[in-house]
Amino acid sequence: MSSWTPVPCQCCYTSSIQSLVAIQLRYPAKAETKRWLVSKLEGRKKEGGAHLLVHPGEDDDGTLVLLSATPYSLLQATEVLGLAKPSSDGSMVTFSYNNKADFPNSEKPEAFLTLAERQLLVKYATDSAKVLQETPVPGYPERRLYPGQPIVQSLQKWGIIEKFYPLHVEEEMHLLTEAWYSQIHKIRQPIDAIRSYFGDSVGLYFSFLGFFTISLVPMAILGVLYHYLSLSFPDKYLLFAIFSVLWSTMTMEFWKRHCATKAYAWGTLQLKSHFEEPRAGYWGPPALNPITGRQEPYYPSWKRKLRIMLVSIPIIFVFLGLAFDGMTMYLYWERWIQVSYQQHHGSSRLAAVCLYLPSCMYTLYIELLNRIYKWVAAVLTEWENHRVESAFQNQLTVKVLVFRFINCFSGLFYITFYMQDLQLLRKRLSSLLIVSQVINQVNECLLPFLLQKFQLRPGTAHHENSKDAPVVDSFVSEGDLPAYPGLFDDYMELFVQFGYASLFSCVYPLTAALLVVNNITEIWTDSFKLCRLFQKPFPCPAANIGVWQVAFEVLGIFAVGTNCFIITISPEVKELCLDFGMTPEQSLLYAIGLEHILITLKIVMAFAIPDQPHWLRLKVLQMEYHSWEALKQSAIKRALPVS
Amino acid sequence: MSSWTPVPCQCCYTSSIQSLVAIQLRYPAKAETKRWLVSKLEGRKKEGGAHLLVHPGEDDDGTLVLLSATPYSLLQATEVLGLAKPSSDGSMVTFSYNNKADFPNSEKPEAFLTLAERQLLVKYATDSAKVLQETPVPGYPERRLYPGQPIVQSLQKWGIIEKFYPLHVEEEMHLLTEAWYSQIHKIRQPIDAIRSYFGDSVGLYFSFLGFFTISLVPMAILGVLYHYLSLSFPDKYLLFAIFSVLWSTMTMEFWKRHCATKAYAWGTLQLKSHFEEPRAGYWGPPALNPITGRQEPYYPSWKRKLRIMLVSIPIIFVFLGLAFDGMTMYLYWERWIQVSYQQHHGSSRLAAVCLYLPSCMYTLYIELLNRIYKWVAAVLTEWENHRVESAFQNQLTVKVLVFRFINCFSGLFYITFYMQDLQLLRKRLSSLLIVSQVINQVNECLLPFLLQKFQLRPGTAHHENSKDAPVVDSFVSEGDLPAYPGLFDDYMELFVQFGYASLFSCVYPLTAALLVVNNITEIWTDSFKLCRLFQKPFPCPAANIGVWQVAFEVLGIFAVGTNCFIITISPEVKELCLDFGMTPEQSLLYAIGLEHILITLKIVMAFAIPDQPHWLRLKVLQMEYHSWEALKQSAIKRALPVS
Repeated sequence: MSSWTPVPCQCCYTSSIQSLVAIQLRYPAKAETKRWLVSKLEGRKKEGGAHLLVHPGEDDDGTLVLLSATPYSLLQATEVLGLAKPSSDGSMVTFSYNNKADFPNSEKPEAFLTLAERQLLVKYATDSAKVLQETPVPGYPERRLYPGQPIVQSLQKWGIIEKFYPLHVEEEMHLLTEAWYSQIHKIRQPIDAIRSYFGDSVGLYFSFLGFFTISLVPMAILGVLYHYLSLSFPDKYLLFAIFSVLWSTMTMEFWKRHCATKAYAWGTLQLKSHFEEPRAGYWGPPALNPITGRQEPYYPSWKRKLRIMLVSIPIIFVFLGLAFDGMTMYLYWERWIQVSYQQHHGSSRLAAVCLYLPSCMYTLYIELLNRIYKWVAAVLTEWENHRVESAFQNQLTVKVLVFRFINCFSGLFYITFYMQDLQLLRKRLSSLLIVSQVINQVNECLLPFLLQKFQLRPGTAHHENSKDAPVVDSFVSEGDLPAYPGLFDDYMELFVQFGYASLFSCVYPLTAALLVVNNITEIWTDSFKLCRLFQKPFPCPAANIGVWQVAFEVLGIFAVGTNCFIITISPEVKELCLDFGMTPEQSLLYAIGLEHILITLKIVMAFAIPDQPHWLRLKVLQMEYHSWEALKQSAIKRALPVS
Repeated sequence: MSSWTPVPCQCCYTSSIQSLVAIQLRYPAKAETKRWLVSKLEGRKKEGGAHLLVHPGEDDDGTLVLLSATPYSLLQATEVLGLAKPSSDGSMVTFSYNNKADFPNSEKPEAFLTLAERQLLVKYATDSAKVLQETPVPGYPERRLYPGQPIVQSLQKWGIIEKFYPLHVEEEMHLLTEAWYSQIHKIRQPIDAIRSYFGDSVGLYFSFLGFFTISLVPMAILGVLYHYLSLSFPDKYLLFAIFSVLWSTMTMEFWKRHCATKAYAWGTLQLKSHFEEPRAGYWGPPALNPITGRQEPYYPSWKRKLRIMLVSIPIIFVFLGLAFDGMTMYLYWERWIQVSYQQHHGSSRLAAVCLYLPSCMYTLYIELLNRIYKWVAAVLTEWENHRVESAFQNQLTVKVLVFRFINCFSGLFYITFYMQDLQLLRKRLSSLLIVSQVINQVNECLLPFLLQKFQLRPGTAHHENSKDAPVVDSFVSEGDLPAYPGLFDDYMELFVQFGYASLFSCVYPLTAALLVVNNITEIWTDSFKLCRLFQKPFPCPAANIGVWQVAFEVLGIFAVGTNCFIITISPEVKELCLDFGMTPEQSLLYAIGLEHILITLKIVMAFAIPDQPHWLRLKVLQMEYHSWEALKQSAIKRALPVS
């Protein structure tokens, strides 16, 4: 469905070429701008062009440009990006164009490269289109491009290009969703197919979601047993706490192994982000990159560190302070209102409404602060001027993550450590688990679905009476969908879940069971969101889940302290200690001892479980050995001066 | 002095060839054995020979064989071992024979390679001499060599070769010791010259010794101030404890950087132990190494792990138990004797002598246990069958280290945590610091020196009436010295010092000052030991101090807990807590809080201080990039099947 339409066309492309990526100019598009853009995207690399196959899509508005690539440029870009592909003996080898005969299928890019890879490579080529001399943008004389400035990103920034998105392939998506939904109740997903269609990062997300859900099952079974058999021996907290601490380590360690296996099979395990091309927003005076020797902007890392230390971190702390102040103010106000309501015996209706006021105000405050903070974090991270996209994303993720962590968990920590009220903690946890998850799913999925159903979007207005060919029409309507917001919120949800399970599940053993049920529907809603409610996102090569791995592991360390503390304050254990004639000081010492033992155990486990399965470790060492040998045999490249 | 003697010789070597390594056969040596050995060592690589220059040293006994190498074989071995050397632009590049023109001085091995490197390369070539067919050893028909069996190691095992040692070069050593001793009081050492003469591992040891001593200076100054100004504000423990915790992290983090810089300059930073040749003792059915593709013995790692888990670790625990039992029995006996002595009012002299009995018996017991354990650890590690020498050494070090750690510190921990007697701890520490260090130095240096001075060694007997040429004579007498025992005990001493400084110096602030004084003499005794009292050790390539880095870091983590505990039980802090009206439970909670903060701080510092300086990081990335590029350009090597 998404191949070139067989209508006769001025470019004389054969009808078998599949459009991979679409660019949509702002309506009304000027003919000279479009002509110039097409010529640049078709142009030769030497002249700053992208060397792509470009088709001025025959839509009514004349705003659409469809992109594809020749097998030659796809394979060239595969080498430049350093993707590994199965060689003829089955092991994954970093692709090089010279050795292409060693890679089965390399003459047929559609079999050799997945859809996601081809779209990534086209995006990479598009991003690399630059002007060589200072030029005004045809049709927009006030906009000037300077030598080396990326064309497509600049036109996007100026709003001349409105949308830039990869295209769906209906048949492939149909097969994918069928395979996905048919086994969803067994938490089985066609991960490799998802990755082929949406790229590595999306593939890893769904793989992690499934892995995490399955890892919750033993805890869920244990929790249900605890709950329904009403087991109440005095050390039940102790057992569940130790279980959840070890569970968090095991889950993350085995995930690392699973993830490395996936990354190897997908050819991204050996990707070196240091050798990546700089991201579009990276600026600085042009200089030779000391590592790769390529000409690119240069911004010294000490300046970046200074910006992070002196500006970003203080600003983050201001926001954390604001969040904390909000919480304490809310708690104060809430208590004050409760007390005065009781004093006045709740006479009027107005007073009853007032009871909900602090809670509502606080929710509003947090929501507002969240939005402002997210914007500030994005601006700060952009201003920190990170060289590669992955560093940018990691820094942004860490910023938002810390803030959300405080927002999500500070209340629970306050109840645990300061108020020491396990009854309240249990109540709060159960309401959070049920209410917030329902709200989340409605917010994430039902709302956008309804909005789309009833065509309330302003974006679709001027296409309503479209007379385009059906295929072009579907390309345009894909562009009308909102851009995919990224995986941050999805991971954040799992992060919060992981926190509930590892930090507090000994207080409320049903946690894991509720999370398993939630996650099965989560797979469904997330996949629906991805396939139907948003533009197809550009694929992103990834070998792991990035900072999220660290974030989950840090949460696992927090779990030790929290669980040990919960044990000491639990009434059952307190009673037990009194029975044995222990002073509070002694029981505290035992808790510290337990904490130290558990942390040591966690560290030992993390070391004892290798991060890669043995066979994979051998494969990696083989690759290292070959590159070491190759280096010795190759002519020495002059090292560049280190600045 | 150590070049070939100018007496006419059947091999017709020019007199400028320097002998690097000596082999001494057991006296009386059989002529046919010696002739065969020389032919094998001279023989071509293809025929299993070592391709060395061999000189049957003209000593009276006819037991000596002197080894040297041609420039060609030295450079070939440099490539095989993967040493990096300065290329013409000054950066360190892994040497390859094909590109030798890019390495300045590579045509003059004596300038290009250090003495230690040349001796290492000769040893490597010697170790690689093998027989191709099953052969009896000439002169020893009962000894048969099998195909692939290393000749020199086997003859050593059977006692046919008595000694195998690298030779000193008098002039070079003279220059080295002059430079060493002239600045010793300023803790300045000619580290690069030490490394050129003795190899990387010895160079790194002395570099670490100096680095550690300098890092102790600030703590020593603070400690002396505390001691002599009798500062006694209530939180002095607190300040000193925090200082020593942060000090331990800073020291090890900055050492890592320093060490990486050294390793880069010495060309060992990129050495990959995985690609090393297996050690001589490694056995197993011959197979292809899955990484390098070379034929070598193969022993699956799961079997090794099983042996470690099921045999080595339980045995270690038995010994740890014996050590612990010894300590408790000693403490029990000591108390019992004290009490009964006081009850009988110490009437007889015999009773007074009995007072010292437990202490003496305990010392004897520990000494005996130590020796047995060391032997058991060596046997176990050999039996675990590690593939490379570095893994073998690391495993052996860890085994002995854990045992010694328990022996050295369990008493102090017992006094701290169980008896909670800071007064006794202080007394014990000061006596340990002064007495044990004096004993150590006498034991390590004075004793061997006196033994040597008065020629009490049996080994020198049959050379007394030697009529050898003076040079050959000196070669023989070098062989008469005992073999260098390795760096384990030297590192162990520093490890114990590091423990005293980081764990307990808040109790006895003079610790650091005493250690500084001790270490300055330690540099002197260690260097004297190395240069004069023992055979020159074979050099060993090293990029870091191996497991010792980890051991010091683990001690740093122990330091947090111990220091926090000492603070809570110190009378001054206890009083302070009472003044503020805190319950013991609350003050304990504060101590836990402090511990958690300090550990977090340590982790943050360890992350914030990069392990390599920025310029070095860039150099390493350049190298990685080049090898990545080289890999892509090289023809694909068939990967071997992974077993």
